Amino acid sequence: MRVDGRKADELRNIHIETGYLKHPEGSVLITVGDTKVICNASIEERVPPFLRGEGKGWISAEYSMLPRATETRNIRESSKGKVSGRTMEIQRLIGRALRAVVDLEAIGERTIWIDCDVIQADGGTRTASITGAFVALSLAVSKLVEEKELPSFPVTDFLAATSVGIIEDPGVILDLNYIEDSSALVDMNIVMTGAGEFVELQGTGEESTFTASQLQDMLAVASKGIKELSAIQKEALGEIADKIGSKPANGSENQS
Amino acid sequence: MRVDGRKADELRNIHIETGYLKHPEGSVLITVGDTKVICNASIEERVPPFLRGEGKGWISAEYSMLPRATETRNIRESSKGKVSGRTMEIQRLIGRALRAVVDLEAIGERTIWIDCDVIQADGGTRTASITGAFVALSLAVSKLVEEKELPSFPVTDFLAATSVGIIEDPGVILDLNYIEDSSALVDMNIVMTGAGEFVELQGTGEESTFTASQLQDMLAVASKGIKELSAIQKEALGEIADKIGSKPANGSENQS
Amino acid sequence: MRVDGRKADELRNIHIETGYLKHPEGSVLITVGDTKVICNASIEERVPPFLRGEGKGWISAEYSMLPRATETRNIRESSKGKVSGRTMEIQRLIGRALRAVVDLEAIGERTIWIDCDVIQADGGTRTASITGAFVALSLAVSKLVEEKELPSFPVTDFLAATSVGIIEDPGVILDLNYIEDSSALVDMNIVMTGAGEFVELQGTGEESTFTASQLQDMLAVASKGIKELSAIQKEALGEIADKIGSKPANGSENQS
Amino acid sequence: MRVDGRKADELRNIHIETGYLKHPEGSVLITVGDTKVICNASIEERVPPFLRGEGKGWISAEYSMLPRATETRNIRESSKGKVSGRTMEIQRLIGRALRAVVDLEAIGERTIWIDCDVIQADGGTRTASITGAFVALSLAVSKLVEEKELPSFPVTDFLAATSVGIIEDPGVILDLNYIEDSSALVDMNIVMTGAGEFVELQGTGEESTFTASQLQDMLAVASKGIKELSAIQKEALGEIADKIGSKPANGSENQS
Amino acid sequence: MRVDGRKADELRNIHIETGYLKHPEGSVLITVGDTKVICNASIEERVPPFLRGEGKGWISAEYSMLPRATETRNIRESSKGKVSGRTMEIQRLIGRALRAVVDLEAIGERTIWIDCDVIQADGGTRTASITGAFVALSLAVSKLVEEKELPSFPVTDFLAATSVGIIEDPGVILDLNYIEDSSALVDMNIVMTGAGEFVELQGTGEESTFTASQLQDMLAVASKGIKELSAIQKEALGEIADKIGSKPANGSENQS
Amino acid sequence: MRVDGRKADELRNIHIETGYLKHPEGSVLITVGDTKVICNASIEERVPPFLRGEGKGWISAEYSMLPRATETRNIRESSKGKVSGRTMEIQRLIGRALRAVVDLEAIGERTIWIDCDVIQADGGTRTASITGAFVALSLAVSKLVEEKELPSFPVTDFLAATSVGIIEDPGVILDLNYIEDSSALVDMNIVMTGAGEFVELQGTGEESTFTASQLQDMLAVASKGIKELSAIQKEALGEIADKIGSKPANGSENQS
Repeated sequence: MRVDGRKADELRNIHIETGYLKHPEGSVLITVGDTKVICNASIEERVPPFLRGEGKGWISAEYSMLPRATETRNIRESSKGKVSGRTMEIQRLIGRALRAVVDLEAIGERTIWIDCDVIQADGGTRTASITGAFVALSLAVSKLVEEKELPSFPVTDFLAATSVGIIEDPGVILDLNYIEDSSALVDMNIVMTGAGEFVELQGTGEESTFTASQLQDMLAVASKGIKELSAIQKEALGEIADKIGSKPANGSENQS
Repeated sequence: MRVDGRKADELRNIHIETGYLKHPEGSVLITVGDTKVICNASIEERVPPFLRGEGKGWISAEYSMLPRATETRNIRESSKGKVSGRTMEIQRLIGRALRAVVDLEAIGERTIWIDCDVIQADGGTRTASITGAFVALSLAVSKLVEEKELPSFPVTDFLAATSVGIIEDPGVILDLNYIEDSSALVDMNIVMTGAGEFVELQGTGEESTFTASQLQDMLAVASKGIKELSAIQKEALGEIADKIGSKPANGSENQS
Repeated sequence: MRVDGRKADELRNIHIETGYLKHPEGSVLITVGDTKVICNASIEERVPPFLRGEGKGWISAEYSMLPRATETRNIRESSKGKVSGRTMEIQRLIGRALRAVVDLEAIGERTIWIDCDVIQADGGTRTASITGAFVALSLAVSKLVEEKELPSFPVTDFLAATSVGIIEDPGVILDLNYIEDSSALVDMNIVMTGAGEFVELQGTGEESTFTASQLQDMLAVASKGIKELSAIQKEALGEIADKIGSKPANGSENQS
Repeated sequence: MRVDGRKADELRNIHIETGYLKHPEGSVLITVGDTKVICNASIEERVPPFLRGEGKGWISAEYSMLPRATETRNIRESSKGKVSGRTMEIQRLIGRALRAVVDLEAIGERTIWIDCDVIQADGGTRTASITGAFVALSLAVSKLVEEKELPSFPVTDFLAATSVGIIEDPGVILDLNYIEDSSALVDMNIVMTGAGEFVELQGTGEESTFTASQLQDMLAVASKGIKELSAIQKEALGEIADKIGSKPANGSENQS
Repeated sequence: MRVDGRKADELRNIHIETGYLKHPEGSVLITVGDTKVICNASIEERVPPFLRGEGKGWISAEYSMLPRATETRNIRESSKGKVSGRTMEIQRLIGRALRAVVDLEAIGERTIWIDCDVIQADGGTRTASITGAFVALSLAVSKLVEEKELPSFPVTDFLAATSVGIIEDPGVILDLNYIEDSSALVDMNIVMTGAGEFVELQGTGEESTFTASQLQDMLAVASKGIKELSAIQKEALGEIADKIGSKPANGSENQS
Repeated sequence: MRVDGRKADELRNIHIETGYLKHPEGSVLITVGDTKVICNASIEERVPPFLRGEGKGWISAEYSMLPRATETRNIRESSKGKVSGRTMEIQRLIGRALRAVVDLEAIGERTIWIDCDVIQADGGTRTASITGAFVALSLAVSKLVEEKELPSFPVTDFLAATSVGIIEDPGVILDLNYIEDSSALVDMNIVMTGAGEFVELQGTGEESTFTASQLQDMLAVASKGIKELSAIQKEALGEIADKIGSKPANGSENQS
């Protein structure tokens, strides 16, 4: 039995509220247990310098926490005048993950900015950010399609993320909250597509190590969690969900 | 008639949700029309260096906007590596205003951190921040009193803020939204106590000027607005409201 | 009687030396009691990015203090690597105030840079900066007119600033020096035009509040001070003074 | 056949030169094909603030590249005034990995600083850094033991890192050079102990995805590479190698 | 004949006004032709970290220019957020030079801060700063002696600085103004004591070189200039001048 | 006798290894006793903004030390977020010195970047950097000539640097190592051409002074050292050395 009564392979309560804020092209509040993240997607009609004139787009992500998202107050990164290593690592991860399921040629010379702002933190903020950001991005992109700015829907598959880990008892668990995360021997973040393929795998023995068989157990549990998350995303997206990954060739390839 | 149908001296719809986030000692979501600000108050058991050993406390405020709180996306101040002049000005204003109604000796060597994070902006974010922050601070301080950390309630009066301005037609208006603010000839932010005294007055002719009689008209309208805001704060605070400014001597003085 | 023997509504000794430095288009040393500020105006033949191609000009101000302008040495902002909130607030105020009496369309796509460098501080440095900067700006602009770069004189009215405040005894006072400022209950900076209209009003109860009637008393005293300052500016500017606000329509409007 | 003639599961030529520089407690030049990294380990007799008084030590890593380690010159991070996200990610990875095989209690309140400076880059600089840093750290720690500063050797196992990836042809490959890395569909960095356990696993589909069976193939090849790297480290360390992970209990545990 | 009518070995008009500002312990306005520098000396009752507990003092210098000290406006270093290489070089030079004629043990654990703020620049600002700073420092130190904070006068000799250079015609010249400096083939700054010894010598061929015999000519002219500067400093210091370098042993040594 | 057994006017063992790294156009490892510096020269096909369209090139130098080049570890300048005054001074010196022997018109609108990275420090790192950088630059430029990018060899003379100083015993010495440098009364860095002319002369009395005759002794010893260094550079450059300063007119001029 886990600290909050969940089973080892059970996700926390997940809720995705779409249309959360009025200005962004795509806006979502994702709630994963007590973790709450506002995920906004904005369309900018230009690309970073390294891509200019290449005829393809880009996805750039930023991540931040309110100072009091956590139990004790953190100093704002704007006050410190620099972004921490942890923040940069998470931002790079979110952007990279989303780029794996978007056809960048298809979106043209545009940047999709993803802003993930954690207003309440209880573990798993980076994976909640990815799961929520996928929905916000799909909403924003869908607007471009509606407005005939894009000929077809450029999102090639669903994408969600969760964490798995190993704690003393009961061993491998899914979707760690903050208390579990603090005492975990191994911590792994997994990003997968709706077709069940890996996009990103980051496993760390926290002053500890893990065996090949422990790895297999973690992957199995993560896979189950991702499927459930994809279903929740699908429901949140409604009709838009049907346009994702609709290209048959691609779909069958993914199931190989 | 104004752009959103309000009368000249009419506030927007105001809502103050208390207990908004779980970690902060005081947490509020204030909604003023389409402007939404999360106001959190945190207690830190020490004071800034310039006050150490003086036996009194301090109130420090920080203000920020989500990049997509506005119609077009703003670059994060943490990414730019510095806080803008506008942000600093607002932070200083919020802290100064709140310090006027808190007995700093009474709170002992503690800092109350106020974090105002604008998640959606439609004009008046700094005055909404002050109005919301007053409630968050009262909640946090009330916890200290409950836990017997403080012998008496150190908040000496209510405090709220609003804006007034002059536009071509109909002239003096209360609580400007973004569109009104953009076209205003004069823009004034006013912070007042529940007793109707001024704490801060900041009036600016935007490439324009204003006469003494226009100033009187603006002050009258502001005064009406502040009274209504105090009533909304009172309701949001419930029983805690009764403890504010209860010292009779002080109260009568304020009404002179 | 005040600490330096002045009457409640008496300015300190004011002196404005024009042509103070040789390189700037307009250069002034303003002395207000023991406060001394070098105000330089520079013409730059381009505007900030947000105004490019708009066919109008801009006025941008910077403010700084020598480390030893004050009784104890301050660390340079260049050494700290960032500009303080107080400095930013003052810079923004100076620029905004001057823009209210300059016809920005008339100056064309130029930036007038105002540099206010306090070499000795004894209270009232921001208001002395505005009063001196107005003269420096007028000198610089006058050179553009002389050189036929501008068809007419684009300064629409005089502009000066001073402080008023409330101290225990004798109550409302004009033009506070550092000692008075430190003990003031209320501190107000006022920027007015030669025609007696307000451009900016910033009143602050320093951990204190003020009533509507106290506000009226302060405004009256400030108004008297500003008139005297305008007269001193007029004398310093000599013939150039006659060109200011000469447009009759505008002038009568201002007196309403 | 690969671009440089290697077999799919073949490492590049590896050389570890110990005692490379005279000042550091441990100093190594590691050469992996054309990638060359100077790895220095320094002992500092104190720990970061968050560990003070806890009676345990810390390992902190920094990573940098000479501007001309790469084919085109990069701007120095010291000139830019900030460390890039990529650098921070690598620094955090190196420190975390090494901490997994060092008994931090056993080293007492000391920090071991690891500096990895890439003087020539041809892919795999982060994994070469970890492999070299492990040797530098072992040399430095061995000096502490010799000088009787430490009662026993605190390194619990060997640690090495390599990359694996998937390219169009021939598929899964070991130890990617820069050209291979640039065209890889999947890129994975793996850190393992001498006992064959995972310490860190970071796999990324570069705008692509990978299946569970592709993951298994990559892990198998990585495991082979790590074993060879450990043997090279062992040879470089000479007698010191015998002291690593000598605690029998620990060793058998690792093989479970 | 030089551009301003001077002879090759003639200084510009030099004036040193003591007691220039009221707050600093020592304050000087030095005028060297059109170059004007405010030099302030401040006493701080502590030393930098690297000297704590060593029983000796330190002299630290900072240098800055008003943005419009020069013909075209420079961006403030505080706005840029960093101090330029040129500024750092000059600051280090001023501090190092002054430390050569002050007995640091004798001043105890104090820092003498030297602030050189150039308000008008026409070449030779760094040497004017040193010459003026020496006087400001002597005034500040003299106050410490008067107040019995120091038992004896710790300044061991006079110190002044000037520039020499080589231009096409007439060759070697003394005390270059900005126009001369811009076209000089060789530029040399020389700091010497009253006893005629070198403290600092910095000669640079500006995309050019110079011979040993040209060096001798420059040194001779510089030596003449320094003697005249010392005489001007002596006059400015009045009675205080008599206390400098009064220790007979030291004095005779210097003349060897 | 000196601390390492050298005679007063004897250089340390010098070695210049050319072609040290594979990517840079010119790459050298220079060893001066225990001081080791990697000097790389890179060609960039554009010039800094202030030179655009002027039809001439530029040479820009950067200097850095590995954190553990020294006996105790230094904090990286990239971690501190700013470059120290010492580093800036050295970078400016290296660039200025090299520009004195390169015909900037002849290299066209190109920047030659010089990177001097000290991997081991034992005194004299800035002079070793200059001596090594000259060789790296010559190699890079020679490649441009070979590739017919430049019509003729634009290096006008040899250039080398060394230090001289005065210590208690035996007095004037050549090429100071770190221990000697730490106790030197006077420290002088000298940059000279192959023709024996001065390019840069920087002499400093370290809390001390020096006489004209001591200066002459130092210059004589330095001159001897530079000649030996030029010979070593010549050997390292092989055939390329013959192209340097081959313009007869220039050569004879230099010997005057």
